[in-house]
Amino acid sequence: QMPRGNLETVHPRALVLTAVRKHLDKLQFNEAFMVMRKHRINMNLLYDHNPAAFISNVAMFVTQVAVVTHINLFLTDLLEEDVTVTMYTAAYERNKSLSAGSLQATPSSLCKVNTICDAVRKALIGIDENKYLLSILTTYVRKSKPELEQALQLVKKLRACTNELPHISAEEALRYLLFLVDVNELYDIALGTYDFDLVLMVAEKSQKDPKEYIPFLNELRRLESSYRMYTIDKHLKRYERALSHIVKCGDERFAECMLLINQHHLHVPALQLYPPHSQQYKNIAIGYAEVLSGKRRHDEAAIFYVKGEIWDMALTSFLACHQWQQVFCMTARLGYTQDREAAVARKLAEELKGRNRHSEAAVVLEQYAGDLEEAIVTLIQGTQWDEASRLMHKHKRTDFVETDFKPRLLESVDALLGNLESMKETFLKHNARLGVVRQEKERARLTFIESGGGGGVQEGDLFSDTSSATGESILSSAPSMSSSVYSKMSGRSVRNRRKAELKKWRLKEGSEFEDCALIASLAKIVKYVDGLRDEVRSLVRTLVMFNYDSKGAELQRQYDTFLTLIDSYLGEIWLEEDQEADVKPVLGPTTTANSIALSLQQGHGQQSESEEGTEKTDPIIKFAPVLQKDKKWKLYALET
Amino acid sequence: QMPRGNLETVHPRALVLTAVRKHLDKLQFNEAFMVMRKHRINMNLLYDHNPAAFISNVAMFVTQVAVVTHINLFLTDLLEEDVTVTMYTAAYERNKSLSAGSLQATPSSLCKVNTICDAVRKALIGIDENKYLLSILTTYVRKSKPELEQALQLVKKLRACTNELPHISAEEALRYLLFLVDVNELYDIALGTYDFDLVLMVAEKSQKDPKEYIPFLNELRRLESSYRMYTIDKHLKRYERALSHIVKCGDERFAECMLLINQHHLHVPALQLYPPHSQQYKNIAIGYAEVLSGKRRHDEAAIFYVKGEIWDMALTSFLACHQWQQVFCMTARLGYTQDREAAVARKLAEELKGRNRHSEAAVVLEQYAGDLEEAIVTLIQGTQWDEASRLMHKHKRTDFVETDFKPRLLESVDALLGNLESMKETFLKHNARLGVVRQEKERARLTFIESGGGGGVQEGDLFSDTSSATGESILSSAPSMSSSVYSKMSGRSVRNRRKAELKKWRLKEGSEFEDCALIASLAKIVKYVDGLRDEVRSLVRTLVMFNYDSKGAELQRQYDTFLTLIDSYLGEIWLEEDQEADVKPVLGPTTTANSIALSLQQGHGQQSESEEGTEKTDPIIKFAPVLQKDKKWKLYALET
Repeated sequence: QMPRGNLETVHPRALVLTAVRKHLDKLQFNEAFMVMRKHRINMNLLYDHNPAAFISNVAMFVTQVAVVTHINLFLTDLLEEDVTVTMYTAAYERNKSLSAGSLQATPSSLCKVNTICDAVRKALIGIDENKYLLSILTTYVRKSKPELEQALQLVKKLRACTNELPHISAEEALRYLLFLVDVNELYDIALGTYDFDLVLMVAEKSQKDPKEYIPFLNELRRLESSYRMYTIDKHLKRYERALSHIVKCGDERFAECMLLINQHHLHVPALQLYPPHSQQYKNIAIGYAEVLSGKRRHDEAAIFYVKGEIWDMALTSFLACHQWQQVFCMTARLGYTQDREAAVARKLAEELKGRNRHSEAAVVLEQYAGDLEEAIVTLIQGTQWDEASRLMHKHKRTDFVETDFKPRLLESVDALLGNLESMKETFLKHNARLGVVRQEKERARLTFIESGGGGGVQEGDLFSDTSSATGESILSSAPSMSSSVYSKMSGRSVRNRRKAELKKWRLKEGSEFEDCALIASLAKIVKYVDGLRDEVRSLVRTLVMFNYDSKGAELQRQYDTFLTLIDSYLGEIWLEEDQEADVKPVLGPTTTANSIALSLQQGHGQQSESEEGTEKTDPIIKFAPVLQKDKKWKLYALET
Repeated sequence: QMPRGNLETVHPRALVLTAVRKHLDKLQFNEAFMVMRKHRINMNLLYDHNPAAFISNVAMFVTQVAVVTHINLFLTDLLEEDVTVTMYTAAYERNKSLSAGSLQATPSSLCKVNTICDAVRKALIGIDENKYLLSILTTYVRKSKPELEQALQLVKKLRACTNELPHISAEEALRYLLFLVDVNELYDIALGTYDFDLVLMVAEKSQKDPKEYIPFLNELRRLESSYRMYTIDKHLKRYERALSHIVKCGDERFAECMLLINQHHLHVPALQLYPPHSQQYKNIAIGYAEVLSGKRRHDEAAIFYVKGEIWDMALTSFLACHQWQQVFCMTARLGYTQDREAAVARKLAEELKGRNRHSEAAVVLEQYAGDLEEAIVTLIQGTQWDEASRLMHKHKRTDFVETDFKPRLLESVDALLGNLESMKETFLKHNARLGVVRQEKERARLTFIESGGGGGVQEGDLFSDTSSATGESILSSAPSMSSSVYSKMSGRSVRNRRKAELKKWRLKEGSEFEDCALIASLAKIVKYVDGLRDEVRSLVRTLVMFNYDSKGAELQRQYDTFLTLIDSYLGEIWLEEDQEADVKPVLGPTTTANSIALSLQQGHGQQSESEEGTEKTDPIIKFAPVLQKDKKWKLYALET
C-alpha cells in the first residue's frame, strides 16, 4: 500500500472504502475513480470489487472515466492479485482459500490483467480509436506477454494516415510507447517485423549510432527476401522462424539450413517442412538419427534411420536395442542372402536368450536361422512348455521329449520347490523377529511414558536388549532372487531398490529401523511369490500331462500352503490402522481426569517418536501388497 | 472347577495351591499329587506348573506316583488348556496374551496331551511294561487321535503271552479298555486290522448277536486276502485303502475297481497305483477327463484325455479352452491332413481374434491355415505393428502397408485420442463434483457439531442442498471402456465391479455415498489410463516411423498431459491421512478445559458418522492407485 501521510487522520481509510464500495455498487465508476485517486486506493479495486460487473460494464467505465490519462493510470496500476483478498481484507472478509479454490477452477481468472486489457481495448476502439490511442497502446504493453508488435503497427498506421487530423501525432505516440518500453527491446521487436520503416522509426529515437545501424540495414536490404528474414531471425535468436525462412530459399541454401538444424536441434520441426522421402527430409532424419545414436538411444535412432532410408544403419540400431521384428524388416529391405540373415539371426537369438526372452529367440531361430533343434532347445530352456510341444510336433521331432523336455521339466520343478522352501524359511524367520522387535519397541515406549517422558533415555538405548555382536544385512538374508531360474526381475531394479533400503534400513539385529528393514524384506518375498502364479500354473499342468502327477501335486500343495501362509500373516505384518492408533477418548460417564491426562500423555509419547513416524509413511511399510487372488492357477483336478 | 464343599472352610484353596507349588518346585510329585487329589485340584497343574521340568523328569514322576490308578487318574484328567492361565489365574498371574503368543510360536505346545501321553508311556515301558499295562493303554486312548489299534495289539500280545505270570489278564485289560472306549468303535477298529482274532475278542464283549457277526466273519474268511481287505475297508468306508487293496486283485476285478473310483472320485490316487500308459491307467484318466468335462473344466479335461491317450477328445477339449498350441500337438498326433488342419486353424483363429488374442491368431493362420493375407490383416487389426511389419517383409507383401496398415494406424490413433479426450472430461467433471460434495459434507458436520450433536437432524437431510431431481448412475457417466478398441478388460470383471459399486454407491447427485462412487469412478479412469503406456509407446513409435510425426507428437503430448493431470490430482482425490484426521490435543500451556471438551465433542461427532467410516475402509476409497512411473513410454526424440 502507498503511504497516505496526514490523509489518514482526516479521512480514515475504512470510511473511504465504504464510499468507494457504494459508488461501485451503483456502477458510478468515475466517482469511485476520483475518490480512489485522491485517497490513493489501489486501482485494482475497480475490477476486484466485482469482476463480472466490471467486464459487462466496461464500455460504461470507459465512457464515465473518459480522460485518457485516467484510463492509463488504471491500466498501469493493474496487478494479477485480488486486492480484496490481499490488501483490503478487513473491508471485504473474502475467504482466501475459497477464492484460491475458484482461481484453480477457472484458469481464465489466472490472467486477470489480460482479460481487462482486451476488454478495455475493445471498448476504446468502439468509442474513439484516435482519441484513446495512448490508452490503446497501454493495453497492448500491459499484457502479460506484451504485444509490442501490434503497438508498433498502430504507430506506423498513424504515420501513414495524413488525410484526417489526428488527435495525436505518430511522433508523440512513439515517444509515449518508449516511455513504457525499453528502446532496445522495441528496436528488436521492430526488426522482427522485417519492416525497415518501423526499424528506422524506432532507431531514430534510440541511443544507437546511425553509422552502425544504417549499414546493417542496407546490407539486409540487399538480400533476397526469404534469406533476409532468415538472417534477421537468426540475429534475434528466433531459430525456429529462421528455419522456416531458410527452407524457402531452396536447395542452394540447404547446407546452411542443415547447419542451423544441427546447431539448434531443430530436426523435429524441420522434418515438418519437407515432404517425406525427399532428399532433404532423409538428410535431416539421418542427422537426427546420428544425434540420438550418440546419446545411445538406439531404439529412437533406428526409427530416424528408417525415415532416412539408411537401412543398414537402422539394422545396426535395431540390433542394439534387440527389436528383433524390425531387424528382419531391415534384412529384407537390404536383400540379405539366407546365409547372411541366418548369421544375424543366430547372434540375435543369443542376445534374446540372455535377456530371458526365450520365446522370441525361438521364433528367430526357427524362422530366420533355420535351426529347428536350437529353437526347440531354447523353448525348453526357457520353460515354455506348450510352445516347445507345438514345435516338436510341428516338425516331427518328439524325440526331444525324452532327451531334453522331461529332464528340464523335473529340474524346473525341483528348483522352484527349493526356492519356495528357502523363501518360506526366511519369511517365517523375519516374521518372528518382527514380532520380537515390535514388542521391544512397545516396552521401550511404555517405559518412556512411565518415566514421565524425561530422563536421560537415549533413542539408541531402547534397542540394547536385542542388539547382538553379529548381524546380517538385507543383502545376505533374503534368498538371492536374481540368481533364481525363475527370476522375472531385472538385475538393475533389484540393485536400486536394495540400495535405497540400505540407505536407512538394515536387517542387522538391533539396528534402529530393523522393523522397517524386515517389513521391506517381507514385502519383497510376498510380491515375488504372488507373481509366480502363472509359472506354477503352467508347470503343474505340464507335469500332470506328462504323468508326473505326484510332482505336480507337491508343487501345487507347497505353493498353495505358502500363499495361505502369506495371506494369514499380512494383517500381522502390515497392522490395521485401528491397531496402531490410540483409542480416542469419548465423552461419557467413565471419563475421568486421569483418562484424559493419560490420552494426552500418549499423544505426547507419540510425538517423541516423530522420526519413526516419517519412516512409517513409506508405502512399502504402510500398505500391504495386494495379492492377485482372482488369478486362477490351481489345477482343480488335483484337489481332493 | 470341581465343587469342594466344606473343604474350603478348613483348607482355603489359596493355601493349598501354595503347598502344591512348593512340592512341585522340589519335584516332589507324589506329595503334590496326594494333596491335589485330596483337595480336588485339577491334575493338569502337575504339568502346567512347569512343563519343561515335568517332561525332563517324567521318569521320576512315574516312579514317585507309582500307583497305576493314580497315574490313570492323572492321564484321564488331562486337558489341552493351560490351567495356570485359565483356572488358577490368581495364584500364577501369567500373562494370557504372552502365553497365547508363545502357543502360536511353538506348534508343539498345541498338542500338550499328546506330548504328555507319549512321554509317560515311554517312561512306563522303561520301568515295567506289565505292571503299568493299564496306564499304557490309557496313554494310547487319551491321545488327541486315539491310537486304539496299538491298544488292541497290546491286549492281543498279552493273550499270546502264557509263559510268564502276567500282572493282569488279557481279559481284564480288554474290560478296562472297553470302560474307556465305546465297544462299537473298538469293534470297527479291530475289523480294520483285518485280524479276526482281535475282532472276535472284542465282539464277545459287545452286545452284538453272534448269529450276525460269526457268519459275516466266516464269509470274509472265505475271500482271497486282498479282496477281503478291500471288502472290509469298503464296509468301514475307508475308500482310499479299499482302492489300494482292490488294485492288488488284478485285472478280473478292474471293473469293480473303476466303479469304486468313479463313485468316490478316487481318480487322482488311483492313477498313482498303475504304471503310466497301461490300459488301466488310461481308463482311469479317461474316466476323470469325462468327469471334468461334465463340469465344463475343459482345460483340465484335456490334460486327462492326453493321459488317457484319447487324442480326438483332447483336441475337442483344447479347442474349447482355446489352448491353440496344444490343439496342433493333437492334430499332429492324430495325423490330420493339411486341409483338415487348416479348417481347424481357421475356426480357432476366429475364436482367438474374438478374445483379443490377435498375435496368436496370426501364428495359427500363417503356420497352420497357410493363409498369409489373413495373418497380416489380423495383426494389423490387432494393432500389432512390429509383428505385422515383420510378416509383410518376410513374405514380400509390403503392398499391405498402403491398403491396410496405414489406414488402421491412423484410425487407431484417432480412436485413442478421442478416448483420452472423453475420459479427461469425465475425470475433471467428477473431480469438481467431488470437491463440492466434500465441502457440503464438511459443512453438514460442522452444523451438526454446532447444534451440539442433538436435534432432529436426519442423515438424509445433510445432502438436501446438493440433491437434484435428475442424476446419473455410474453406468452412464464413465465412457464405456469395454466398447473401446483399446480395452484390455474382460467384460465380466467390469460387470462384476460395476455391480458391486451399484450395490451401495451411486453417482446420482445427492445420493448418500456419492463421494465414494465418484472416487471409485475416478480410480477406474486412473487405472485404465495408466495401463495404456505400452500401447501409446508402440503407437507413437510406429507413427513416427511411417512419417506421421505430428500425429505421433500429438498423441504423446495428449497422453503426457493427462498423466500429469492425474498425478497432480491424486493427492486431492485420495486425501493424505493427516488431512482427514483431527488434530490430537497435546498437553501444554494452551490446553484449556474447553479445548479438551471440544476434542471430545469432535470425537463424538465422528462417532455418529461411523457408517461412513466403514465405507471409507474400502481399498478403492482408501488408497490411491500406484502409477507405473518407472515404465518408459515417451519418445525422447519428440520432446523439444
